Amino acid sequence: MPSSSFADALLSPRAIALVGASGDVRKNTARPLRFMRKHGYTGAIYPINAGRADILGERAYPSLTGLPGPVEHVFVMIPGSEVAALLPACAQAGARVVTVYSDGFGETGADGQLRQAALVAQARELGLRLLGPNSIGLANLHTGGILSVNAAFEADTLLPGDISMVSQSGSMMGSLLSRAAARGFGFAKSVSVGNESDISVGEVVDALVDDPHTKVILLFLETLRDAPVLARALMRARSQGKPVIAYKLGRSEQGDALAQSHTGAMAGNDVAVDAFLSAHGVMRVQHLETLFEIAPLASRYGRPPRPADAVTGTVARVAVITTTGGGAATVVDNLGLHGLAAVAPPPDFVRQVAQAGLNIRETPVIDLTLAATSAQYKMLLEQLLRADWCDAVLSVVGSSAQFHPGLAVKPLLEADKPADKPLAVFLAPEAPESLDLLRAGGIAAFRTPEACADALAVFFGAAAQPPVAGVPVAWPETLPRSGMLSEHEAGALLRHLGVPVAAGELLPPDTMNHTVPYPLVAKICSRDVAHKTDLGAVRIGIADEAALAHAVRDMRESVSRLAPDARIDGILVQPMESRLIELILGYRHDPLVGPTVLLGAGGIAAELSPDFALRLAPVSVDEARQMILDVRQTRLIRGFRGLPEGDCEGLARAIAAFSQLACLSGVRVEEAEINPLFVRADGVVAVDGLVRLA
Amino acid sequence: MPSSSFADALLSPRAIALVGASGDVRKNTARPLRFMRKHGYTGAIYPINAGRADILGERAYPSLTGLPGPVEHVFVMIPGSEVAALLPACAQAGARVVTVYSDGFGETGADGQLRQAALVAQARELGLRLLGPNSIGLANLHTGGILSVNAAFEADTLLPGDISMVSQSGSMMGSLLSRAAARGFGFAKSVSVGNESDISVGEVVDALVDDPHTKVILLFLETLRDAPVLARALMRARSQGKPVIAYKLGRSEQGDALAQSHTGAMAGNDVAVDAFLSAHGVMRVQHLETLFEIAPLASRYGRPPRPADAVTGTVARVAVITTTGGGAATVVDNLGLHGLAAVAPPPDFVRQVAQAGLNIRETPVIDLTLAATSAQYKMLLEQLLRADWCDAVLSVVGSSAQFHPGLAVKPLLEADKPADKPLAVFLAPEAPESLDLLRAGGIAAFRTPEACADALAVFFGAAAQPPVAGVPVAWPETLPRSGMLSEHEAGALLRHLGVPVAAGELLPPDTMNHTVPYPLVAKICSRDVAHKTDLGAVRIGIADEAALAHAVRDMRESVSRLAPDARIDGILVQPMESRLIELILGYRHDPLVGPTVLLGAGGIAAELSPDFALRLAPVSVDEARQMILDVRQTRLIRGFRGLPEGDCEGLARAIAAFSQLACLSGVRVEEAEINPLFVRADGVVAVDGLVRLA
Repeated sequence: MPSSSFADALLSPRAIALVGASGDVRKNTARPLRFMRKHGYTGAIYPINAGRADILGERAYPSLTGLPGPVEHVFVMIPGSEVAALLPACAQAGARVVTVYSDGFGETGADGQLRQAALVAQARELGLRLLGPNSIGLANLHTGGILSVNAAFEADTLLPGDISMVSQSGSMMGSLLSRAAARGFGFAKSVSVGNESDISVGEVVDALVDDPHTKVILLFLETLRDAPVLARALMRARSQGKPVIAYKLGRSEQGDALAQSHTGAMAGNDVAVDAFLSAHGVMRVQHLETLFEIAPLASRYGRPPRPADAVTGTVARVAVITTTGGGAATVVDNLGLHGLAAVAPPPDFVRQVAQAGLNIRETPVIDLTLAATSAQYKMLLEQLLRADWCDAVLSVVGSSAQFHPGLAVKPLLEADKPADKPLAVFLAPEAPESLDLLRAGGIAAFRTPEACADALAVFFGAAAQPPVAGVPVAWPETLPRSGMLSEHEAGALLRHLGVPVAAGELLPPDTMNHTVPYPLVAKICSRDVAHKTDLGAVRIGIADEAALAHAVRDMRESVSRLAPDARIDGILVQPMESRLIELILGYRHDPLVGPTVLLGAGGIAAELSPDFALRLAPVSVDEARQMILDVRQTRLIRGFRGLPEGDCEGLARAIAAFSQLACLSGVRVEEAEINPLFVRADGVVAVDGLVRLA
Repeated sequence: MPSSSFADALLSPRAIALVGASGDVRKNTARPLRFMRKHGYTGAIYPINAGRADILGERAYPSLTGLPGPVEHVFVMIPGSEVAALLPACAQAGARVVTVYSDGFGETGADGQLRQAALVAQARELGLRLLGPNSIGLANLHTGGILSVNAAFEADTLLPGDISMVSQSGSMMGSLLSRAAARGFGFAKSVSVGNESDISVGEVVDALVDDPHTKVILLFLETLRDAPVLARALMRARSQGKPVIAYKLGRSEQGDALAQSHTGAMAGNDVAVDAFLSAHGVMRVQHLETLFEIAPLASRYGRPPRPADAVTGTVARVAVITTTGGGAATVVDNLGLHGLAAVAPPPDFVRQVAQAGLNIRETPVIDLTLAATSAQYKMLLEQLLRADWCDAVLSVVGSSAQFHPGLAVKPLLEADKPADKPLAVFLAPEAPESLDLLRAGGIAAFRTPEACADALAVFFGAAAQPPVAGVPVAWPETLPRSGMLSEHEAGALLRHLGVPVAAGELLPPDTMNHTVPYPLVAKICSRDVAHKTDLGAVRIGIADEAALAHAVRDMRESVSRLAPDARIDGILVQPMESRLIELILGYRHDPLVGPTVLLGAGGIAAELSPDFALRLAPVSVDEARQMILDVRQTRLIRGFRGLPEGDCEGLARAIAAFSQLACLSGVRVEEAEINPLFVRADGVVAVDGLVRLA
C-alpha cells in the first residue's frame, strides 16, 4: 500500500485500527466497527482488544504489534491514562494520524493540560498527528469510514453529499447531522476536533479545501485556537470558491463565558473573532439550522454579486413573490430587522409582466394568491431573476406547499435560474415534502422565517474583500522597545505612523519655555500615569504663563501625593484643540485573532450603548471608511440635520495609519488607545495617546 | 331548537348554511361541506346553491328561504357584490352570525371600505353579526364544525385540544395549524377574522375566555382595530387564568409598513401596540413557532412566579441541566441575548445532590453527559424544581432524544413537577418522537434553541401588573379647550397636573416688568410657533434688562419676518435652569391603542440610537420608575461612575403626573411634549412644553 497524504490518512484512511473496540454492542466502543460494517467501508479494519480474539464476529488483535498490514489511522477508545503508552505502537504500525476519543486531558484543568502537551510532544517525535483528545471522531460518508462513536451514525443509511462539517462540540455535530439528514442534506465528511491539541480546525478546513467531495464547509465553533492556520485555510477556501459557514457560540457575554470555560480557551473577544471570520469571508449565521439550510445558497451563488454597500447607502434589495401575504410578511419583517429591503417592482417591470399576461402591483410583496397559474408564476420568477432592480428573489409558498408539493415547487424547480441572482424560499406551512423537493433541486429552502431572513442577511453581509497584508514599518530608534510608552513617546510613535497628533512640547523640569500659544493644555508626562485625570495630572484652558506655572505646581503636588513612585518625564503642553465630535481609536493584540483596531464613539454616552466598529489590523483606507459608517456617532459629522460636516477622509487615513501598529518591525504592541481623537471640519487630531508594548 | 348565545352561534353553531357551496370537489367552495362530513360534524348543514339540487351527494337548497329548520350561522362563499342582497334572508333564516369568505370589500381600497361599512350597517339593522368579509372562516375542532375553506382541514383526522387561535391572516392560520398539528398540538377553535368589519379579535377572544375547551389563546396579529374591546377581553382572560400569546408583525419598520398596507390599517406605532399587549399581560413572541410551542409553559405555569424585576436588578435565573454541553450552550447564548441568566448551583445545593449520590459542579450548565443514570437525572431535576436559587429549569437533551426517546424523556415525564417552577426542554438533535412524548406529557419542548430562549424570555418578561385606571382630572377653566396651547398655557396645564414647570412669567407687549432673576431665558409665546428655535424665538443667558429689551426686539423682528401670521401672546421669561441630564416626556393619543406616554433620552445622541420607554397612559409612579430604568441615559443619574445622582423619585412623580393628560375630563389631548425636561439632584423641571388638543 503506497503511503497516503496527511489529508487522506485523516479523512479517507484505507486501513484503520480500533484500539479499545468492544464486543458488547451496548457500549459506545463497539460502535465504530458496527458503523463501518453497516455503511460499507471497504478498507482494512483491525479491532484491537487484549482480552478477546473475536469482536462482533470479526477477528480481533491483542495489540497494534504484528497486524497483517499497515495502518493509516488509529482510533483510540481506551482510558486517557493509557493513551501515551500506546503511541509508539501506533507509529510502528504505520499510522500517520491518531484520533483520540479518550478524555481526561486539557478539558479537565491544569494537570490535564500538562498531560495533553506531553502527549502532543511525544506524537510529534514519533511523526504522528493527533486529532483530539476528547474527540467524538470523524466520518467519511462516501467511504463509510466512520471513526466515531457518534450515535448519529446509527441510521440505517447515510446520505453522502457535498457538505462537510468541522465541530468543536462532539455532541452538537451529531445533533446537526441528524437535523440535516432529516431534511435530506447529504454530507461528505464530519470531523470533531475535540481539544484540538494538534490537528486544529484550520488544518481540517485546509484538508477539506482539497477534498473533491466537499463543496461547502460548515463550522460549529466555541472558540478559536489557531487563527493563523485557519486564516490561511480560509483564504485557500475562498480562492477555490468553497464557501465556509460558521455558527459560533458567544454572541452574548454569557454564552462567550460559557464557551470559554467549556473549552478552557483563552479569554478572547467574540467581537474580535467575528471580525476575523468576516475578514476571511466566513458567513456567520445566528440561527442554528441556518448553518446547513444556507448551504445551497452559499454553494450555488458564492459571493453575493452586488454586496450590500453602506458607503453608497445601498442595502440588499429583495423581490418577494408569494401565495401567502401573511407568510411573506413574517420574513419581510425579519429582513427589516437585518437591514435588508423588500422592494416593490418598478412601473416598467409591472408593464412588462402585464404584457406577458399577468397583472401585479407595485407593492413590496407581490401576492399571487388567487390570480396566477403555475406557468405565470414561472414566467414572473424568471423575469424577477433577471431584473436589475433587485439583488435576490424570495419566494414564500403557502398551503399548496403542504397539500400539493409537486405543484407548489414546480415553477421554482423548472424556472431558468441564472447563477448571479440568489433565490431563497420559505414554506409557510409544515411542508416536509416540498422542502425535500427543493433541497433535491439545489434550491435554498427554509423552515422558519427567522432562519430564512438570517440566511439572506448573512449572505449579503459577507465581506467581499480579503484582509490587507501589512507593509512592515520600522520602529523609531529613539523610542523604548518594551513596556508602557509615555504620552510624549506615544505621540511620537503615532506621528511616525502618520496619525495627526496635537503639537505637544515636553518641558523638562523647571523650564517654562515653549512655543505653544495660550490658552493651552498641560499634563504630567509619565509612563507610570495612564489615567491622568484620576491623578489630577491634566489642566485645560491655561490662559498665560503665570497660570501655567501654577498648574504645573498643582499637578506635580497631586501626582507626588497620589502616585509617589511615578517617574515624571516633564510637562507636556499642547494647544487647546477644537472639535466637532470626539472618537476613540483602540488597538489590541487579541489573544485569539491577533491585532485588531477599533473605532468607537467618545464621551460618556458611548458607555451607555455600544457604538464601535472593530476589524483585524491593519486596515486599508477603504475599510476604514466602512468602519466610520459603522459607528452611529459619526452620523453627526456626515450631514446630520444641518450640522457641520467633519473630515471623514482624514479620519479614514488616521484609522488606517493607526492600524499600522500591527506592522511595526521587531516590536509587538499589546494595546494602544487614542482617547479622545478630535474630528474637525479640516482634519483630525489625537489629543491623548497611550501605547503599551509587549 | 332554543336560541344559542352569540358565542355559541359564532364558535359552536348547531345549524349551518353554506351559501355558494359547490359540488365540484376541486373548488374551495366545496370544502366546508367535505370538511364537516369528514370530521364528523353532527349539526344540520344546509348547502345553498341555486343551480343544483344535489351537492356531493347531499340535498342542496336553492336559497335560504324555506329551509327545513332554523340556521344559526351562515357561511357565505358567493361573489362580494352579491353579499348585501343575501343578508335579509340570513336574518329570516334565523342566523345570528354570518361569516363572509367573499372578498372585494375594505381590503380593496376606499370604495370597498364604503361597501363594507354599508354591509355592516345593514347587518346591524337586521340583528346579524358579521365575521369578515375576506375571512377564510373558522373551525371548531371538537364538533367538526368547520366553516372554512382553509386547506389545513384537508387532514384526515384533526386533533382536538385546548389551544385556540385568532388570526388576522387567513393563510397564516392554516400554516400555523399545520405546524402545530405536525407536532401534536391539539386545537379547540380557530378563527380568521378577515377584515374585522364587525366581529373583532377582541370579541372572539372574549368568547374564547368563556369557552370551556379553550385554555390558551393564540393571536396572529397584523394590526389592532379594536383596542378597547380587546383590552376588556384580555383583562377577562387574565382573571380567568387563560394566557394569551401573540405573534405580531411589525417589529421592523418595513414589517410594520407592510402590515399596515396589507390590512388597510391606520398608521399606528408598533411600539405602542407592544405597550398595549404588555400592559394587558399578553406574551408577545418573536419567533413564529414559539407562538404554539410556548403554550404548555404558559398554560401550566400562568404568570411567572417571580417576574424579572429590573427595579432590584433581578433577571430571571435559569438552572440548566444537560447531556450535551454544546447543545445547552446554544440556548444559554441566546438566553444571554435576552437578558436571562444561566445560574450555577450554589455549594449547598451541590453538597445536597452529592449526598443523594450524584456529583455535579458549580457551573452555569450542569453537564451529566457520562455520569448519571435516569434515576439520578430525575432526582436532580426534582431538586432543581424545588431550589430557591433559580426561577426556571431548562433541560437540554442530546442524542438520546433521537435514538432512545422513551428513555431520554422518562425522567422529565416522571419527575414530580411543582406548579410554580417552570420547566422547559430543548432537544438538540432531530427528535420528533421525544418532542411528541413531551408534548403529550404537557411539557414545553422546543425544536430550536432560538425559540426556546424566546419562550423563556417572553414568559419572564410578561408584565405582572394590569394597567392603572385613571382618575378623572378637571380641565382648568382658564384654558382653551381645543387646538394648540401656547407655551404659557401648556405650562399652566402641566402645573395643574402636578408637573414641575420652570417659573415663567408672561410679559404683555411693551412691558419689561418681571420678578425672574437674571440671567434668564426669554421666548416668544405663541400658539402658532411650535418650533421656536427655528424662528429665532428663544434667547438664553440674558444678563440684564438692557439685554432683555434687545433680545425681545430681535425675536419680534425675526418672528414677524419668518412667521408673519403668528399671533403673539407676549414674551415668556424664565430663570436659567441647571441640570444633570435632559430628558423628553412625550404623550400621544395613538390611533390604535389610545393614550401613550413616552420617556426618552434628550439631546442629539438620542437621535442616533433609540433610547426610550413607552407605556399606555396613565401610568402609576411604580410603572414610571420602571420606565426610568428602561431608558439607558438615566444611568447617568443613577450612580454611574461616580457622577452625581438625580432625583429619580421626583422624575417618576413627574412622569406619572404628565401621563394624566389621558385623564382630563371633556378634552382630548392629541399630543404633548416636554422637551427638555431637566433632571437635577433635587428635582425635575419642565423647561419647554407643547400641548395640542383635538
